Amino acid sequence: MKKMNNPDSRFPTPDPLSHTYCVIMAGGKGERFWPLSTNSLSKPFLKLIGGRTMIQLTVERLLGIVPKERIFVVLGETHLAIARDQLPDLPAGNFIVEPEGRDTAPCIGYAAIWLLRSDPEAVMVVLPADHHIPDVDRFSKTVVRGVGIAASGNYLVTIGIKPVRPETGYGYIKAHEAFSSSKDGFCFKVETFVEKPDFNRAAAYLEEGTYYWNAGMFIWRVDTVLLGMERHMPELYVNLLKIGDALAVGDKRHISEIFHGLTKKSIDYGLMERAENVLMILGEFRWDDVGTWSSLLRVMEPDDNGNYTSGDTICLDAKDSVIYSDGTLVASIGISDLVIVASKNGVLVCDADHAQEVREIARLAEEKQGRTKA
Amino acid sequence: MKKMNNPDSRFPTPDPLSHTYCVIMAGGKGERFWPLSTNSLSKPFLKLIGGRTMIQLTVERLLGIVPKERIFVVLGETHLAIARDQLPDLPAGNFIVEPEGRDTAPCIGYAAIWLLRSDPEAVMVVLPADHHIPDVDRFSKTVVRGVGIAASGNYLVTIGIKPVRPETGYGYIKAHEAFSSSKDGFCFKVETFVEKPDFNRAAAYLEEGTYYWNAGMFIWRVDTVLLGMERHMPELYVNLLKIGDALAVGDKRHISEIFHGLTKKSIDYGLMERAENVLMILGEFRWDDVGTWSSLLRVMEPDDNGNYTSGDTICLDAKDSVIYSDGTLVASIGISDLVIVASKNGVLVCDADHAQEVREIARLAEEKQGRTKA
Repeated sequence: MKKMNNPDSRFPTPDPLSHTYCVIMAGGKGERFWPLSTNSLSKPFLKLIGGRTMIQLTVERLLGIVPKERIFVVLGETHLAIARDQLPDLPAGNFIVEPEGRDTAPCIGYAAIWLLRSDPEAVMVVLPADHHIPDVDRFSKTVVRGVGIAASGNYLVTIGIKPVRPETGYGYIKAHEAFSSSKDGFCFKVETFVEKPDFNRAAAYLEEGTYYWNAGMFIWRVDTVLLGMERHMPELYVNLLKIGDALAVGDKRHISEIFHGLTKKSIDYGLMERAENVLMILGEFRWDDVGTWSSLLRVMEPDDNGNYTSGDTICLDAKDSVIYSDGTLVASIGISDLVIVASKNGVLVCDADHAQEVREIARLAEEKQGRTKA
Repeated sequence: MKKMNNPDSRFPTPDPLSHTYCVIMAGGKGERFWPLSTNSLSKPFLKLIGGRTMIQLTVERLLGIVPKERIFVVLGETHLAIARDQLPDLPAGNFIVEPEGRDTAPCIGYAAIWLLRSDPEAVMVVLPADHHIPDVDRFSKTVVRGVGIAASGNYLVTIGIKPVRPETGYGYIKAHEAFSSSKDGFCFKVETFVEKPDFNRAAAYLEEGTYYWNAGMFIWRVDTVLLGMERHMPELYVNLLKIGDALAVGDKRHISEIFHGLTKKSIDYGLMERAENVLMILGEFRWDDVGTWSSLLRVMEPDDNGNYTSGDTICLDAKDSVIYSDGTLVASIGISDLVIVASKNGVLVCDADHAQEVREIARLAEEKQGRTKA
């Protein structure tokens, strides 16, 4: 890999932070954390790792970078009330309601159009609402560095995380070569984005050393990302312009109609894999997408028996398990490697290695409930 | 073993059934079926094996032997309301309330004194309220035969079950020799009663062939059992006479005082192990004391995956497990050999081999509740 000296100076950015906006994506269904999560109470709004919800922790993490006036949340109508309730300090106008979920490309495009109206020089930092990043200082430094690079307008910046295990639950970014390096770290051209691999491939990626976890965080100027969409997702782009017009006259109904016609597409698939001007910076902070109940055993400090317990629990000879109660008493005897969750919606007992299948249970539970109501 | 011909004729009993009373013991705490059972809702009153509670099934089983007027239930004040509710056909006067639980010897002595007042020739059949006996015909025949033997007044008759596995959860009866045999089966003198053995001893008993499961069922004339108590439990006997006097004048308070002073003792330990005139008849019916949640896998017909499920459940790749919901949805993924129970009192997740330890959980749960209330 080629290295260059003092390369961050190639991105002249007098005061990019004053034009920086954090956009938290809080859409998505509440399937993987059933029975705690439901469609009306999805993962960002759950207290999975302590006394604050995931979205509260996400906002707190950003307050060291931008003032609260420049923190936005994109979410569905279903979650608006709870989001406002959990984030009372954010201005009411900073909740961007998507008429319906169309995956990340439309979500990000919508937020870009929204920001562009008030600040043509806006740099947006796109972040999931429900990831675990305990090391706030390192995280902030990475974001600020990304903002510096993105502010030039030439690049779509994404954050890659050095893998520490052969994880099959994440997408990967294959870095191509060091585009630049500075005291703040490397910056890479991206060769390709890779979907969630199987175990053998994940193990190979780990060994190969040039694959990074795709943390789903992006930093770019809004005009740059819209330009990218114009080129690589022209249909979406045209619709975003129409949405911009509708926003100007406050025509919510028209926005809903346009959204309804949008194709579901992720930003990775629609833009990042196709664009030439993608750079990856290294996020040298501990990161976890907290994708399943089992991941709490990584994220939280387990007790001496390897358990993570929360709420009203009694354990007799339980080990290496997540035991989470949202109310009722949960007692376990002689168990290991289980996820046990009890909430008012139901009880889950799941082998820790099968936690991905909780989605299926959530769907079946919803079906059952539908049938009961019908 | 010596055999004799037509030996049942040694017990001349013109019409013993007309003096026969069934006494169902429904005392005891609700610990082993936590979280479904509680002190106020103990095992006899639970629907563990289908749509009827254990005590309802017990009474139904007896109605082929005696009319409902001669079926009595001994229980604590705590359970009187629910017992009357579940057994509306039994006469109100057939519920014998123990002021407090003092184990089986005082319980049986109290019932004997109670019956003696109205029928000095009473033969009492003592039965637990919460056992599983699917084969009602064979059960009835055994009881009727036992009544025939007991009516002579010479014997304390107990029912032994031929073991089919090295069970450590039951007490055993070692049969001594065949006292008699008839077309209805053998009748044995008893060598000794044995407490719950460890696994190796249970396996030896199974192989040895002269050990039988102690089903906790007894048949005798009330005067005979009281005579046995006079000899082997004189302190209890004196107190039972006092209780008889108090019953005659309806002095409940005095009965309570006497009960409070009684020593806790089981009928096995206090009388059966000491008396010389004990006979065991063979109960050639399927029998299970349904002692733990795991026992439901023996008692009930498991599904193709070896599971017994009850209530609102979803199973993805679950096997050899008891999954019981009393209300809320219980979902399981990738599990085996577990007991999962959810009720309004809490959630239990227990390795099937640890089901005996549920008592401990019930106690801890009660303690917790006590602390919360305090």
